Amino acid sequence: MDKEWIMNEIEQLSRFSETSRGVTRLAFSPEDYAAREYVTKLMLENGLTVRTDQAGNIIGRLEGSDHQAAVVATGSHLDTVPEGGKYDGVVGVIGGIAALKILQERGPLTHPLELIVFAGEESSRFGLATIGSRIMVGSIQAKALKKLKDQNGIGFSELLNQQGTDIEELAQAVRRADEFKAFVELHIEQGSSLEKNNKTIGIVEEIAAPARCKIVVEGVAAHTGNTPMAERHDALVSAAMIIIAINEIAQAQSARGIVGTVGALKVYPGVINVVPGLVEMMVDIRGTNHQSIIECIQEIKDAVSEIAERQNTGVAIEVLSSEHPVKLDKELINLFTGVCQQQGIRYQQMNSGAGHDSMNMAKITRAGLIAIPCRAGLSHNPNEYASSEDIQAGVTVLAEALYQLAK
Amino acid sequence: MDKEWIMNEIEQLSRFSETSRGVTRLAFSPEDYAAREYVTKLMLENGLTVRTDQAGNIIGRLEGSDHQAAVVATGSHLDTVPEGGKYDGVVGVIGGIAALKILQERGPLTHPLELIVFAGEESSRFGLATIGSRIMVGSIQAKALKKLKDQNGIGFSELLNQQGTDIEELAQAVRRADEFKAFVELHIEQGSSLEKNNKTIGIVEEIAAPARCKIVVEGVAAHTGNTPMAERHDALVSAAMIIIAINEIAQAQSARGIVGTVGALKVYPGVINVVPGLVEMMVDIRGTNHQSIIECIQEIKDAVSEIAERQNTGVAIEVLSSEHPVKLDKELINLFTGVCQQQGIRYQQMNSGAGHDSMNMAKITRAGLIAIPCRAGLSHNPNEYASSEDIQAGVTVLAEALYQLAK
Repeated sequence: MDKEWIMNEIEQLSRFSETSRGVTRLAFSPEDYAAREYVTKLMLENGLTVRTDQAGNIIGRLEGSDHQAAVVATGSHLDTVPEGGKYDGVVGVIGGIAALKILQERGPLTHPLELIVFAGEESSRFGLATIGSRIMVGSIQAKALKKLKDQNGIGFSELLNQQGTDIEELAQAVRRADEFKAFVELHIEQGSSLEKNNKTIGIVEEIAAPARCKIVVEGVAAHTGNTPMAERHDALVSAAMIIIAINEIAQAQSARGIVGTVGALKVYPGVINVVPGLVEMMVDIRGTNHQSIIECIQEIKDAVSEIAERQNTGVAIEVLSSEHPVKLDKELINLFTGVCQQQGIRYQQMNSGAGHDSMNMAKITRAGLIAIPCRAGLSHNPNEYASSEDIQAGVTVLAEALYQLAK
Repeated sequence: MDKEWIMNEIEQLSRFSETSRGVTRLAFSPEDYAAREYVTKLMLENGLTVRTDQAGNIIGRLEGSDHQAAVVATGSHLDTVPEGGKYDGVVGVIGGIAALKILQERGPLTHPLELIVFAGEESSRFGLATIGSRIMVGSIQAKALKKLKDQNGIGFSELLNQQGTDIEELAQAVRRADEFKAFVELHIEQGSSLEKNNKTIGIVEEIAAPARCKIVVEGVAAHTGNTPMAERHDALVSAAMIIIAINEIAQAQSARGIVGTVGALKVYPGVINVVPGLVEMMVDIRGTNHQSIIECIQEIKDAVSEIAERQNTGVAIEVLSSEHPVKLDKELINLFTGVCQQQGIRYQQMNSGAGHDSMNMAKITRAGLIAIPCRAGLSHNPNEYASSEDIQAGVTVLAEALYQLAK
């Protein structure tokens, strides 16, 4: 395998960024389109036929000897969070192309192979993750997609229009279950479990489901100089209490695998000389046990109501999404385990707190997820790092698994 | 007095707004320039000669019989906070013009009268208040002004350039102490003391000084799904603890007249799926006792250090400004008191928590501040309201005081 080629292409992709600190390539941004165009060329240069579907998913294909056989697919995403890293998603795209190169050299297979670059995996821009794969598996409707707007008020449908697609045409991007034999994703762990246990490969059994809430605290905007402390309804003070409550609830539930975060917060009017009148917060709760997520959200609702009453500020809490954890395919888990054992690669079975496109693909086909370590567990951070050795091991396992499935 | 005229002009000015919710007329914005142009015309129509100085302060003038006599001035500002009210500043501008109309009808005075519309009174845009009056009294230098940038990175000097002024020319806007005999400002209280005590006029003895700090909390940006609660360095959780600490410190000191507010807060990267890596906050502390402000800032610094250490997040606290409270002129206080008694107007002496341009004018001349009630003490809020009766009473006291000073 050409390790140099892989690391060089990962480096090339990191240059498609809006910022110099880390990689900023928000879904459907000019940088994202530029990176997608670059990868399209890369796939063509490496012997794949390439098409882009109505949702912006890029599909590279290698025909097998049996044109009627179901597809064995791999893939991941190119979009990033603001000031994210070089490896999140990209390892599965470049690693996927590298695996297909290996398989081309090994000679013709029965099943066709596909490398899918999913559009809009990160929730950073629209508050909704894995948009491209949701569309591909038909689990989201035009009605819900029409509501999506980014922080600047730009609608998802506007962006689709700019790429020449009407939102109603997205049904054409939906694929049937019988088109696929299996889907396998290679991804960095985005946690520190592999590093701590000194393992090279993580074989994911279950992917945690995110629940997302929006909390709006309504106080009374007032002059900071002339409004006595006792007469204030400061929305930010109430919001601070809610942030601490959510953190405490998640900590108390952490033994059950729960994590809870307030990642986004906006203050209105948000200037130095006005007591905050309104605060909006976005909350992300995850766990591999759906019941414990539901309980956690209920605890948050109770805490929020109590704070609102005590502080005499209005609060609205809206659950934007609450999904079930996804169990990955047992046969694929066994397949990956066998490959690791055969190749003498240190592996472990594990759960993933992070969501991935494989979560959606699991709705229409057997889906698997292979994780490789990232230094100190850092991801969604400019210092995200995965070593060439670990990436190489991931590609080796991916290529062998695809071979076994497609031969 | 033409009460209808005053209320109509206040209404006209409220239309120069970027938003329909409240009035948004940030300093040096297109809306601010449009309102200033409108008021310039209004002054010309009402017999004043008008000039605009290099800082953008508008100066309307009525000559007295003695051209060499020192100026008796009044005035306030037109710029607002985001989504502020119709009355903050405007009452002193329109009320000032109304007072000058009354005095014109009463016949010629010895001293010239001036109505000054100060530029950039609110700190919302540049984090620094009363920019126009600071420049007029020569208490701020070009070097400090060059550093000012708004939230979009637009420099104060760029805005000056757009109005055709170089920042080095601002020295030409500085006025000498011997040019003035006195300055009197009419303003809404922006607090609820007058309403509670059922008084129509507040005669301000002392203006509280603001101290401003910027606090930056540095955590580690991380994936919200895969970063266990115990391994996080969440900048927003630490920031929430700091907000609560500042609120508690200000509440504990409120008997000494202290108020403390975190009005602005920004989260980086500020998206739903990333544990916050960095938070910036702006803090406003005010009181009429400088020593208690200094003690309060020290308590905040101690609390911030303790939280930073406990949470293992980095924190930097920078004191941006810390000013002394301003005592207003005793003779003017006596003059206003005499006018209220003579006219049978219910008044009280009081302190002002809000800063005003009169604070700066006090550095070069005898300065006074007349406050009128605003409903429920609300200001910097779309629901800010002052009754026509109270505005009329304020104009009556202002006109009589100017008459006594200028006759």
